Amino acid sequence: MTVAYDGTEFAGFQAQVGQRTVQGTLEDALGHVVQESVRIAGAGRTDAGVHATGQVVSFSTASALPTETLRRAVNAWLPEDVVVPAVAEAPAGFHARFSARGRGYRYTIWNAPERLTVGRRYAFHWRSRLDDGAMDSAAQLLQGRHDFAAFGGSTAGAEHETSTVRTLIRLHCWRDGDRLLIDAAADGFLPRMVRNLVGTLVRVGMGQWTGEQVAEILASRDRRRAGVTAPALGLCLTNVWYA
Amino acid sequence: MTVAYDGTEFAGFQAQVGQRTVQGTLEDALGHVVQESVRIAGAGRTDAGVHATGQVVSFSTASALPTETLRRAVNAWLPEDVVVPAVAEAPAGFHARFSARGRGYRYTIWNAPERLTVGRRYAFHWRSRLDDGAMDSAAQLLQGRHDFAAFGGSTAGAEHETSTVRTLIRLHCWRDGDRLLIDAAADGFLPRMVRNLVGTLVRVGMGQWTGEQVAEILASRDRRRAGVTAPALGLCLTNVWYA
Repeated sequence: MTVAYDGTEFAGFQAQVGQRTVQGTLEDALGHVVQESVRIAGAGRTDAGVHATGQVVSFSTASALPTETLRRAVNAWLPEDVVVPAVAEAPAGFHARFSARGRGYRYTIWNAPERLTVGRRYAFHWRSRLDDGAMDSAAQLLQGRHDFAAFGGSTAGAEHETSTVRTLIRLHCWRDGDRLLIDAAADGFLPRMVRNLVGTLVRVGMGQWTGEQVAEILASRDRRRAGVTAPALGLCLTNVWYA
Repeated sequence: MTVAYDGTEFAGFQAQVGQRTVQGTLEDALGHVVQESVRIAGAGRTDAGVHATGQVVSFSTASALPTETLRRAVNAWLPEDVVVPAVAEAPAGFHARFSARGRGYRYTIWNAPERLTVGRRYAFHWRSRLDDGAMDSAAQLLQGRHDFAAFGGSTAGAEHETSTVRTLIRLHCWRDGDRLLIDAAADGFLPRMVRNLVGTLVRVGMGQWTGEQVAEILASRDRRRAGVTAPALGLCLTNVWYA
């Protein structure tokens, strides 16, 4: 299933006891529709406050409902901040997370002196003008197959893979008026990696760091050297691909 | 002052006793800053749920605060769904509403089978595919100086001007993926006029009405013949001009 959600009122994707999560909300709705207990796997385990327009989840069911009937029934059960735009049957052995070949995210910065009102849940506000050209140049230096331990999040535990090597297929920063967009695509991302990359690029945009310093931070593999984690609300999981 | 707001949690622009309104919220914040009672006039008296990125309001004050100081102080008092991006001193006799030469609005339709989640407060959801080409052709027939009584709202009372003649400078309908945008600019709009025009264009987009029928509805000056009023949440006051 392709899934879209507004992450503002969710404690993240992953199910947690006593919390409103995307996974829990989807499993509840699916359980009502197929009349059995359902466990879903998500391609990207987005943090609290992170949005998605193209999350993908997989699950097994004994239900014989046609996919379109299932989709409509699930959407009728879901609250207004989650929706399932598409459902398809998957080949045996398909797993939304482990079968994924890559993920795409977009980070939005509202780069204007005053805060945003219309759409404020979907952009991080940065008052002083950022140099998008310098940010994009630094972003290009980060592309490719690298050990991203310096951008790898501080909460990595037993549940995460031990390797911190990823292929950053694309990291592109561009301006649309007062909006600054950062598009990131990779075979996979470490926890908080996009937000850590954004926090570092903002330092470049402020003129505090050069592209060369960013390359040094990457090479250091030291999380303490990178910029602070950018806020969750600016981040959106836009697509996941498999072929 | 230029003012932007998310209209979702306001009972419209105009002050009403016991209601949370944009006017009341701005007057409260201004009153705290200039330490006197302030009455503001707005260029467009947007309905409940209608948003603005470029509303303009005017007021008189004995305060000698520089405009930039005033702007920052007011923004510090305002809640997160209203902001003042710009403040300027106006010539004597300036009135945000009566001095305005024109207003621009944008209406957004999310035209996809499933509802929108990210940004759902800012778009009206219409499931079946609308014919944007037919809608734009019909929109062009409505441009110009006409008596818009057929699109003039059902709540016109003594407070509104008696003439229903307006110059619709531009009415343009276009598609951006699953988003359908309708841009309207006029010397002035009757109550609910944009939303009534949109409701009528949607009938054209569904293939129920032709451009010729829309022209006949305009000529009839009969409010009962036009389409239903489109919901407030898709509408945004984008700009007001004076020169």
